[in-house]
Amino acid sequence: MNDTLQKLKDIFGEIADLNRAVGVLAWDQETYMPPGGVEGRASQVSTLSRMAHARFTSDEVGGLLDAAGAEVAGLPFDSDEASLVRVARRDYEKERKLPSDLVAEMASAGSTAQPVWQKARKESDFKSFAPYLEKNVELNRRVADLLGYRERPYDALLDREEPGLTTDQLETMFAELKKAIVPLVADIARHTDAVDDTVLYRGFDPDLQLKYALDLVTRLGYDLERGRQDLTAHPFSIALGPGDVRITTRVSRDFFNECLFGSIHESGHAMYSQGFGVNLNRTPLWGGASAGVHESQSRLWENLIGRTQPFWHHFFPSLRNTFPEALQGCDGEGFFKAVNKSYPSLIRVEADEVTYNLHVLLRFELENEMLEGTLPVKDLPEAWNARFKSYLGIDVPSDREGCLQDIHWSWPEFATFPGYTIGNLIGAQLMDKIRADIPDLDEQVGRGEFAVLLRWLRTNVHRHGRKFTPNELVERATGKPLTPGPWIAYVRKKFGALYGLQTAK
Amino acid sequence: MNDTLQKLKDIFGEIADLNRAVGVLAWDQETYMPPGGVEGRASQVSTLSRMAHARFTSDEVGGLLDAAGAEVAGLPFDSDEASLVRVARRDYEKERKLPSDLVAEMASAGSTAQPVWQKARKESDFKSFAPYLEKNVELNRRVADLLGYRERPYDALLDREEPGLTTDQLETMFAELKKAIVPLVADIARHTDAVDDTVLYRGFDPDLQLKYALDLVTRLGYDLERGRQDLTAHPFSIALGPGDVRITTRVSRDFFNECLFGSIHESGHAMYSQGFGVNLNRTPLWGGASAGVHESQSRLWENLIGRTQPFWHHFFPSLRNTFPEALQGCDGEGFFKAVNKSYPSLIRVEADEVTYNLHVLLRFELENEMLEGTLPVKDLPEAWNARFKSYLGIDVPSDREGCLQDIHWSWPEFATFPGYTIGNLIGAQLMDKIRADIPDLDEQVGRGEFAVLLRWLRTNVHRHGRKFTPNELVERATGKPLTPGPWIAYVRKKFGALYGLQTAK
Repeated sequence: MNDTLQKLKDIFGEIADLNRAVGVLAWDQETYMPPGGVEGRASQVSTLSRMAHARFTSDEVGGLLDAAGAEVAGLPFDSDEASLVRVARRDYEKERKLPSDLVAEMASAGSTAQPVWQKARKESDFKSFAPYLEKNVELNRRVADLLGYRERPYDALLDREEPGLTTDQLETMFAELKKAIVPLVADIARHTDAVDDTVLYRGFDPDLQLKYALDLVTRLGYDLERGRQDLTAHPFSIALGPGDVRITTRVSRDFFNECLFGSIHESGHAMYSQGFGVNLNRTPLWGGASAGVHESQSRLWENLIGRTQPFWHHFFPSLRNTFPEALQGCDGEGFFKAVNKSYPSLIRVEADEVTYNLHVLLRFELENEMLEGTLPVKDLPEAWNARFKSYLGIDVPSDREGCLQDIHWSWPEFATFPGYTIGNLIGAQLMDKIRADIPDLDEQVGRGEFAVLLRWLRTNVHRHGRKFTPNELVERATGKPLTPGPWIAYVRKKFGALYGLQTAK
Repeated sequence: MNDTLQKLKDIFGEIADLNRAVGVLAWDQETYMPPGGVEGRASQVSTLSRMAHARFTSDEVGGLLDAAGAEVAGLPFDSDEASLVRVARRDYEKERKLPSDLVAEMASAGSTAQPVWQKARKESDFKSFAPYLEKNVELNRRVADLLGYRERPYDALLDREEPGLTTDQLETMFAELKKAIVPLVADIARHTDAVDDTVLYRGFDPDLQLKYALDLVTRLGYDLERGRQDLTAHPFSIALGPGDVRITTRVSRDFFNECLFGSIHESGHAMYSQGFGVNLNRTPLWGGASAGVHESQSRLWENLIGRTQPFWHHFFPSLRNTFPEALQGCDGEGFFKAVNKSYPSLIRVEADEVTYNLHVLLRFELENEMLEGTLPVKDLPEAWNARFKSYLGIDVPSDREGCLQDIHWSWPEFATFPGYTIGNLIGAQLMDKIRADIPDLDEQVGRGEFAVLLRWLRTNVHRHGRKFTPNELVERATGKPLTPGPWIAYVRKKFGALYGLQTAK
């Protein structure tokens, strides 16, 4: 390698180390840090984030990127070197627009707001959280203004999360989804008796749930030599390096889905991160292509694998051995149906596949309105509840189960919610191609074999890290641009069959 | 405050944040990090340590220290500002002599060697660890040469750990100690039947031990709002900021002392750290005065409080309620005697008060010899075993219980062992003064009241942080320079009484 690239890589390596240290600080704050640590942690995260940002946006990096750009000009688009310079240049131009002090302020605001949100959610006390959300809205506006946008401020934020996607495009996709989902929800409501999910609420020993879930995700391919599972209020996965990708989960005695499907979801994220090419380690290419692509991996394992007949054909016997009392009188087919019951509900992370995207739509709209100033923060609970009633037909009994339920608005980064829907769409589109490439996928899953599937994902998605934009990646993997079509066809078919709907015929 | 001092404090604050992040990385590595994380963690620790060091030893800090030195010239020696400039200048001049790359290399060497040591200890396989120890010896030699010394290379290293102390002084103190200890050990050996400690090996449920220990140390004054306890192979305490000071422990079903006295020991360290003046936060003054002063706090709580009659008068009833079977037929007096049984043993951290300093002497000598090149690393096990036989009269059955038992030589910093003995001496000397200032200390301890004692330590030791050298601190607190006298008198009296020896009369 020539000197310029090596110099760039050395600097990027230091920045990666700083960012990974920030990751460990964040993981620790969520899992084990004592309450008294909040103030000091905010300061540490802020200092390290500012240093990483200052180093990355330095004139030195700009100069090296200029020089390297000329040097990689002849290399193939998807070569490590050309991709590194291209993606780093894109990041550089965005981050360069944000002063280091703002980045530090955002990091500090996040660390400070999070425990406030936790307490506010617990006590269903929106008022105590409102000033912190106002601060975050203001920070997001400043970021959007600094980054610049043609049409709408949300575009600037969205492009950081989902490079290449615009607010208008998103609105078009959501409109198409809404048009398909709303009648499907109504149709399912008329056939609700077709699926009985009471078995999920019979009471499952939490320790056994955790053990079963961890064992199951390692069988999917999550590598515990390079990972671990802990308990947190809000489950997440975090990539601290090729050898250290962790997941967290939560567990409820009274609702089975929380722990197991949460664990599968997070391990989907984690398997993605464990699969980033080691050739990309400690460079800006080592990471997920976007929040949406990340979510495609978690949702694919959680729903397109974990909520299928062959999956439960394989796992139900061991599950019944683990929980013989709770699962008395239930069989694999009944359990498969139970974990797919669809009905409007309050909590996004517990929502079924059909209604899930409505939860996201709601947040996307409200976030946008707060950002554009048409919705004052103080009016958020009212707007949330009204919109919720309109989309999902149910009354929100408290802010804890309403606008305080997600951790996301305690972070000073907006535009992270759309990734959940993008992820659903990408997942379904990838799955169409996977089924074409692996015709006996269902038989493999039915035997508890996931290695061929994981290899497909490693080859077509994971190893590329951030080399490609979401659209580039989807096109390369499936041969087509991203559309909601495959996902709509998938839910219509699956839920049509489950509920015996007209649409399925 | 004037601009120069504020500027210095801003820089010191950033350095503190980096160092505390390194602390979190280290804590995580010891507690929860998956095995695959080792390589990445070494790189993170190395990068952050190098950044902290580079920033601290910059010309900018040098210039600011020069300017600040003139400005604080008229202030009292013990004022925050004068102390900050004085101590930072002392650190600066030392650290300035070490190139940043060497500091990064040391950090990385430590992260890399530690898992190797862990495995080597487990398998009692010195050969696999030897190359890493050789590397550490070499690093220590380079550090000593760069720092410079008049007499012996160990002086340079010792002065970093115990400012103001020389190798010769240490040898003199050890000679005096050895002269007192060796006959005492022999005397005790002739009266060994006077103390029966078999109760400690009767089997204690590990979970209950952990719970009891954590509850007990919070009653001493360890604040869990600003702390927590975890399990590690080698117990330690770590100060991550005024609001976050953690301890770790280990637990054995078959030997009671390990968990409880280990927890008291680490909480003694942690209470010291929780007591550093918040006015010193994020400056070089926020920290322990030296390894020895730190150890004086842990050993004071562990032995001079935790191994006394009034202590067990108070705690034995609740301990017996917790472990009714194991403690059947035992009373508070018998238990007090049991936890003080003295006999030559293999493991330093389990050694009784009388023999403990011989364990330290052995390490101090061997470390010195490796550093001066008279003892090749490959010959360490043989030298260890021979010296051990000579000082403690017992054969070392394996390297796991011999020269591989301590984590310290996996760190690239030597001269940390003498602090254990210095700590014993300082603790005893402080306790003489405490007893003079709090005449009813025993009655308070007997009632489970530790607030007055903790306040004394806060006032005379803790709040000063690194303002004073160990000698300055001891003189200010006790009115006398440090000598082995009080400790020798203390063990003669205590163990004379316990074993009914001539010396006690």
